[in-house]
Amino acid sequence: MSEQSNLLYERLASTLEQSIQGGVLRPGDRVPSVRQLHQQYRVSPSTAVTALLKLENQGWIEARPRSGFYVRPRLASNLPEPVAPRSSPLATPIGVSEFGARLFEDANRSSVLHLGTACPAPELLPWERLRRDLAAEARRLGPASTSYDWPPGALRLRRSLARRYLNLGCPLSADELIITTGCMEAAVLCLRALCKPGDVVAIESPMFFGLLQTMEELRLRVVEIPAHARTGLDVDVLARTLRRQKIKACVAIPQFNNPLGSLMPESHKKALLALLARHDVPLIEDDIYGDLFFGETRPRPVRSFDAEGRVLLCGSISKTLAPGLRVGWVAPGRYYDRVLALKRTTTIASATLTSLAASEFMDNGGYDHHLRSLRAALRQQVHRVSEAVAHSFPRGVRLSRPQGGLVLWIELPPGLDALQLSQDAVRANISIAPGPLFSPRGGYRNFLRLSCGEVWSPRMERGLATLGQLAHRQWKGRKSG
Amino acid sequence: MSEQSNLLYERLASTLEQSIQGGVLRPGDRVPSVRQLHQQYRVSPSTAVTALLKLENQGWIEARPRSGFYVRPRLASNLPEPVAPRSSPLATPIGVSEFGARLFEDANRSSVLHLGTACPAPELLPWERLRRDLAAEARRLGPASTSYDWPPGALRLRRSLARRYLNLGCPLSADELIITTGCMEAAVLCLRALCKPGDVVAIESPMFFGLLQTMEELRLRVVEIPAHARTGLDVDVLARTLRRQKIKACVAIPQFNNPLGSLMPESHKKALLALLARHDVPLIEDDIYGDLFFGETRPRPVRSFDAEGRVLLCGSISKTLAPGLRVGWVAPGRYYDRVLALKRTTTIASATLTSLAASEFMDNGGYDHHLRSLRAALRQQVHRVSEAVAHSFPRGVRLSRPQGGLVLWIELPPGLDALQLSQDAVRANISIAPGPLFSPRGGYRNFLRLSCGEVWSPRMERGLATLGQLAHRQWKGRKSG
Repeated sequence: MSEQSNLLYERLASTLEQSIQGGVLRPGDRVPSVRQLHQQYRVSPSTAVTALLKLENQGWIEARPRSGFYVRPRLASNLPEPVAPRSSPLATPIGVSEFGARLFEDANRSSVLHLGTACPAPELLPWERLRRDLAAEARRLGPASTSYDWPPGALRLRRSLARRYLNLGCPLSADELIITTGCMEAAVLCLRALCKPGDVVAIESPMFFGLLQTMEELRLRVVEIPAHARTGLDVDVLARTLRRQKIKACVAIPQFNNPLGSLMPESHKKALLALLARHDVPLIEDDIYGDLFFGETRPRPVRSFDAEGRVLLCGSISKTLAPGLRVGWVAPGRYYDRVLALKRTTTIASATLTSLAASEFMDNGGYDHHLRSLRAALRQQVHRVSEAVAHSFPRGVRLSRPQGGLVLWIELPPGLDALQLSQDAVRANISIAPGPLFSPRGGYRNFLRLSCGEVWSPRMERGLATLGQLAHRQWKGRKSG
Repeated sequence: MSEQSNLLYERLASTLEQSIQGGVLRPGDRVPSVRQLHQQYRVSPSTAVTALLKLENQGWIEARPRSGFYVRPRLASNLPEPVAPRSSPLATPIGVSEFGARLFEDANRSSVLHLGTACPAPELLPWERLRRDLAAEARRLGPASTSYDWPPGALRLRRSLARRYLNLGCPLSADELIITTGCMEAAVLCLRALCKPGDVVAIESPMFFGLLQTMEELRLRVVEIPAHARTGLDVDVLARTLRRQKIKACVAIPQFNNPLGSLMPESHKKALLALLARHDVPLIEDDIYGDLFFGETRPRPVRSFDAEGRVLLCGSISKTLAPGLRVGWVAPGRYYDRVLALKRTTTIASATLTSLAASEFMDNGGYDHHLRSLRAALRQQVHRVSEAVAHSFPRGVRLSRPQGGLVLWIELPPGLDALQLSQDAVRANISIAPGPLFSPRGGYRNFLRLSCGEVWSPRMERGLATLGQLAHRQWKGRKSG
């Protein structure tokens, strides 16, 4: 083949690739035939064939017998998973508050498609039953219930929780639990109980931005320990980190990390505990997603393997029943007294009525039945959003395969800017959580988190297609720019 | 009169005085007659007369025509008020958490007579109407209400509050308010917005121990500015303090300071604002007791005179409707953005249902009617507790005359130890708040705060008599020891 025809077929292949990347040709579309290419692009049939074979080799198109070439369908399950970043041993201050504030502002607007906040859609929550429980508990309130529900808080709820933890293989007594105003307060109390400003905390990376913002406000410094898309926290890296520097606490979401959806295997959990024991470092375990497993059984928290009270287990009903009730809890292990004292000086007590309603729902409201259907719905939604991303995002995208929870973690091709995408999306009335939110130093520039909490709908489908187009547009702009 | 009879009459007078002080002879009791004294104590009639006249001169007893001497009734209104302590210009760290923890433990026990915590008794709160409102709001909840009520929180409640503030001469728009989980969270958010650990805050002294504990947990240092039993914060002392050192914020309860019940006159409020403006220091104004005035009108908060957004106004329904609802708010002035961001990273949001029920009660539940009867009840209870203290405590006791609120501040004779009294009281199933709780350095050793929130009852009467006896016993032990 001459140099000239070499150039010609490469130019043609590149043109076709851009049509596919740019969404002009969509998966399943027929690619122009050799004859059409010959006529439209004025290339020889052999140049057209060579270009098509190149695209086939690269996986862009596939031949169908007696029919020609078609753009290859892309299945989420064929996409690679995002990769864990390299860890930096440096403790860094945190600077994410500003992005976070913008995200919360969007969350208040009802015209926006909410792919940014990790909440199940109200339609998935048993509000009909819940409001009946709230009304019934309200009517039952005795005069004394108007008073402060002094910490550790409603005994009835603590007993309901103790029963549930026992059933999942994590025996905890009601006396070990403290009721809080949501899981966030639980985590804040733990961080304040263990650390003072300037202290260094080891955190999973990527890490839920709400906790990062909290740590920023508490003036903590953090060391990021990479978490793998499938197995979570890298215990070996944590081991090296602990040898090198003084760490006051470790913070992780071992069951379905937000944003990864990863689940630490039990062997890793035990290794983590042994490591923390050697260095006498406590673990703040955020178990808020634990009930949202896609597998066969509810994974046991790290706390269930802990005989020494080193794990401060935090939970809430915000992802399973209703974030608006603001009911959470913490089992702070050996740090119980300290956390209790801090609870008193932060919000004094938690609300009585909502605690009682949560307890009533857990004991008599069919909580487990509700959880089964919620899990099925979320698993289905995660699947559909995954397929939509695979379908509409630029080639080279990587995708987490959550084992529970309700979020997807997406790695865009290198060079794409998730902050830019997020701004473009807001203009299209779509809110997403850009990757830099999940890192103390604004890393993960080409990552983003999508919430799968919204019920699948044509609007959702259009929104994800729009998001894919915006990503394509940025990709093309970058190429031509 | 001989030296001998001199000695005799003084010994007799002292014996009688101890009988009165020790409660053997109670106000209104007849004092033994000259004849009885002559017979029982083997003193001459003239010695007996001299002793009685000495006691009369000292105000212990009074003569009634044709009837003899009686122990003089002691009226609360005759007692002097506690005096403001001298201020120390030194910024000190705080160490009150331990006492506070004990107080909260007592508060959980129902067998205890609660004179320690400043809450209105459940019987005084409109729980019947409130639980109906809660039930009605619960039934009305739409699916979206299960979701986070993103800060600044329930617009309906913010509008109700804005209307109320407007009516009392403190115009605030709904947009200036942020709903919080009680007044304590409001104050914590303000302190965190304004100060970092190690910063110095100027506080009224004595100061509500809950705020002191919070400041201790936030690792702030404080300078105590004396507050007068009647007029509150001493603006002149604050002026000298501001000239001498860098103060990051001032914290005060200008309407019915807890524990003093003092009310800053409007002229002082304006002087305070002018002073703070000169030094550019913000004021955290805790207005939680403002609606509990005993006078003619609701006093205006300092915030109502503030055109520059320098006052962060905190309030809640915890003293007027139900502490158990955990509904509070803050109007942070020019620090709005910062407080809003902190709210998100502390408890994310406040509960929807309780906010809506509070709003419903304010708009349609007869809130003002309820407040009128609550104020009348509290004023009456404060009066009865005052009289009981005047009646049963050792001579030399000083007593605040609250102009609102529900607590009394008591200064025991010098040398008496309120911590000891508090421990003795706990053994008698009575909880009180000893003075050292109200000072960062454990001052106010001979002070205590009594809550008048409990409804007057024989149990309450007996409890206060017991408390008086315990104080007497300590007084006598000290004299003989």
